[in-house]
Amino acid sequence: MSAVQELLAFQRETEALSQVMGRLGWDQETMMPRGAAEQRGEEMAALEGVLHARRTDPRIGDWLAAAEAATEEEAAQLRLIRRSYDRTRKVPARLAAEIARVTSVAQGKWAAARKAQDLQGFLPVLGQVIDLRREEAAALADGGDAYDALLDGYEPGITGAEIAALFDRMRPRIVALREALMAAPPAPQLTGHFPRDQQRALAEEVAVAFGYDLARGRIDEAVHPFSSGSHNDVRITTRVDEAEPLGCIYSTIHEVGHAGYEQNVAQGYGLSVLGQGVSMGVHESQSRIYENQLGRSPAFCGWLHGRMVDRFGKLSVGGPEDFARAVNRVASGYIRTEADEVHYNLHIMLRFDLERALMRGDLTLADLEAAWNDRFHADFGVAVDRPSNGVLQDVHWPVGLFGYFPTYSLGNVYAGCLHAALRDAMPDLDDRLAEGNLAPALGWLRERVQTHGALREPRATIEHATGAAVSEAPLLDYLEAKFGALYGL
Amino acid sequence: MSAVQELLAFQRETEALSQVMGRLGWDQETMMPRGAAEQRGEEMAALEGVLHARRTDPRIGDWLAAAEAATEEEAAQLRLIRRSYDRTRKVPARLAAEIARVTSVAQGKWAAARKAQDLQGFLPVLGQVIDLRREEAAALADGGDAYDALLDGYEPGITGAEIAALFDRMRPRIVALREALMAAPPAPQLTGHFPRDQQRALAEEVAVAFGYDLARGRIDEAVHPFSSGSHNDVRITTRVDEAEPLGCIYSTIHEVGHAGYEQNVAQGYGLSVLGQGVSMGVHESQSRIYENQLGRSPAFCGWLHGRMVDRFGKLSVGGPEDFARAVNRVASGYIRTEADEVHYNLHIMLRFDLERALMRGDLTLADLEAAWNDRFHADFGVAVDRPSNGVLQDVHWPVGLFGYFPTYSLGNVYAGCLHAALRDAMPDLDDRLAEGNLAPALGWLRERVQTHGALREPRATIEHATGAAVSEAPLLDYLEAKFGALYGL
Repeated sequence: MSAVQELLAFQRETEALSQVMGRLGWDQETMMPRGAAEQRGEEMAALEGVLHARRTDPRIGDWLAAAEAATEEEAAQLRLIRRSYDRTRKVPARLAAEIARVTSVAQGKWAAARKAQDLQGFLPVLGQVIDLRREEAAALADGGDAYDALLDGYEPGITGAEIAALFDRMRPRIVALREALMAAPPAPQLTGHFPRDQQRALAEEVAVAFGYDLARGRIDEAVHPFSSGSHNDVRITTRVDEAEPLGCIYSTIHEVGHAGYEQNVAQGYGLSVLGQGVSMGVHESQSRIYENQLGRSPAFCGWLHGRMVDRFGKLSVGGPEDFARAVNRVASGYIRTEADEVHYNLHIMLRFDLERALMRGDLTLADLEAAWNDRFHADFGVAVDRPSNGVLQDVHWPVGLFGYFPTYSLGNVYAGCLHAALRDAMPDLDDRLAEGNLAPALGWLRERVQTHGALREPRATIEHATGAAVSEAPLLDYLEAKFGALYGL
Repeated sequence: MSAVQELLAFQRETEALSQVMGRLGWDQETMMPRGAAEQRGEEMAALEGVLHARRTDPRIGDWLAAAEAATEEEAAQLRLIRRSYDRTRKVPARLAAEIARVTSVAQGKWAAARKAQDLQGFLPVLGQVIDLRREEAAALADGGDAYDALLDGYEPGITGAEIAALFDRMRPRIVALREALMAAPPAPQLTGHFPRDQQRALAEEVAVAFGYDLARGRIDEAVHPFSSGSHNDVRITTRVDEAEPLGCIYSTIHEVGHAGYEQNVAQGYGLSVLGQGVSMGVHESQSRIYENQLGRSPAFCGWLHGRMVDRFGKLSVGGPEDFARAVNRVASGYIRTEADEVHYNLHIMLRFDLERALMRGDLTLADLEAAWNDRFHADFGVAVDRPSNGVLQDVHWPVGLFGYFPTYSLGNVYAGCLHAALRDAMPDLDDRLAEGNLAPALGWLRERVQTHGALREPRATIEHATGAAVSEAPLLDYLEAKFGALYGL
């Protein structure tokens, strides 16, 4: 075998083991008996040890030195393997293990602190997590910007400065739109009782309409919905609240967006470094365009309204138009994951500024709560009433995911670009959406984005799909037009 | 760290990875999307490669050479690790991989051949499996008996000659009992419609009554019920036939026996070589005593009859006595897994004689069907009507499990020994069983057998528990007494 062949065969086994690791995570959130948590920790640590040894195996360096790519695909694989090898080797094994240990402890402490509204009790362990991630970032950055080094792990090729500039351009138009919408008469809200089994059945129907292949996936329930796996085994979860059916439906569509990206990668790329979404941002672009630009479009809401009435009887909101307004209701809220499309990116901008300051040492833990609450009040017009609605609201920081948040906004920006190009290519899109027919839009996304997996770098992936440079303008134009119309501005 | 400490730490990680492998198998039978089969094969092969490398790691030899056990437990661990290391290293990696590949192919061909009743089409691949396992056996046997070498992988310390002698002693009394029962008026049969959800709920109730800890386990459905996992994550499956509820209930009790053994091993033994059942035979002793000597006892049947009437209304069989006769109905049948307690061991004796002859080359594949069918007619009094009721009935031979069948009968013999000792220790056992109170019997089994895991060799485990040498006599005495009374002989 040539060096390339040996390297790719070795990598294929690593990818297969990495899929096993992902499935352990899925099992933990859906199926695992509660008494098995400690044992599961040992199982995952043992497998992580195997994966770490493979990812830093010195033979990879030898193979890379000797390898010559014969195709564009092989060149991309070598590039991705080299990047992973270089990054993994820069972090000492001792530090990687310590991060795994401390973030596991911090996750438990966060859950308890959140329940007890005890931010002060949580700050010491958060400080440990931050110190460890700063140490890791310094090792990765090689003298460069530490925050950029972390960001690079989630969205290769973009810098904190670029994101700051992007957010500076987005912010005034979002704030202006938000203020106009908050001054307008509020949209109606859906109320009633929606039985679990009916919600699950409708979620499955909608998932299939959005192209989810149940022969290569399955749908279960979890506290926080997620998608996991790749290639021919991609599983999603949803959540059910019998008083509020839209959470179940739109969580499902969101996760089907992630899963669709994984399921639709070219079959030949399966179990290779090309056979998965290229970055967190591009992944999020798929979940967001499925969920929002398609799933929350007034045209699709018309179709969904009919399916809701069929399953649940008369709704508390009037006809399809009122239903679309309820689906797209804009309201200030504390929780990012429940935010409407207009508020969503304001949450991310807040997180980005705070975590970048924390990483740089410009913000201390002692000042974190005040900084969050002041900023939140300024941006959202309401005061944070308790830590579980503020600093403690989600698990990203406790588990050390610094540099991750901005990819959510990048996903929205990318989705905006893709949506504009899709509308150009498909002038009758709304007619199809009104029939519940997603196939044309999904086919376009599949061909333009999903089938290529990780072949191109993140921004190049979007630019290849749209034929235009990435810009925030399409997203902002879309938000102003859509919400202006829905709210009669 | 000392050599013992290093070895045991290394082994602990191997055990954790082995648990992961087991869970992939569970997932495959219960949760996996059907389109993921090929990908799963690659994942399991990659993990198997990791496990094989660890099990043959030369450092184990160095550690074993330097290790000194400080306790009885450490001595047992070193003995079990040495045995596994020696066995694994005797089989060339090339042969192990070839066996994995061919048995995987053979399993698929068996399923197709069974459906098509095409034994002839299946024989060539069965021949390959046999040749490979004979080659493996020769490598393991080091000049000794090849069948014994295979048997040793499932039931260490027993030989084919000992089993042959045991079966020779058992056979006359079983044949005589069978003939007497077949001449007596038949027992009644339970008929009716038993809704799936009610069966599942009753199965869960019965599982809990038999001590299954749902905080460290779960119950799902599978085509062929099984138990998997160990320590704090032990999962079982059951099957549901709405026309026949006893299959679901007794499959569940059987698997709870296996699971109970794993769940009740001393917590300190978890994720070590001691932390699991010691052999297939001792494992089966637990599932069989739960299922038969306890679960099918007339006393427990009385309690179960009440629970059945509560859930399903009036039954087709009269009162508790008739129900106990229906549960213990004796009838000739082709399928081992559906056999009553009297016929069960006749199935195993047939398999044992045929597979031992195949391994020795005394029986050719061309003669296999005639040998099976002649023997079956002689033993069971009916002619085999098609291959799926004969040679093709189960998957053991296709996947190469030669030497495994006799452990099922050893389990019955061991269960007979344990049951006799339990009755001696607990004269009022039937009163407790009649209340549906399994706790005293389970406590005895837990303390005498289960908590010790793999600390002692198989027969020593049973002899330690009962204070007597292993013998077939208690099982045969029990069968004659129980079925004589039920059938009014």
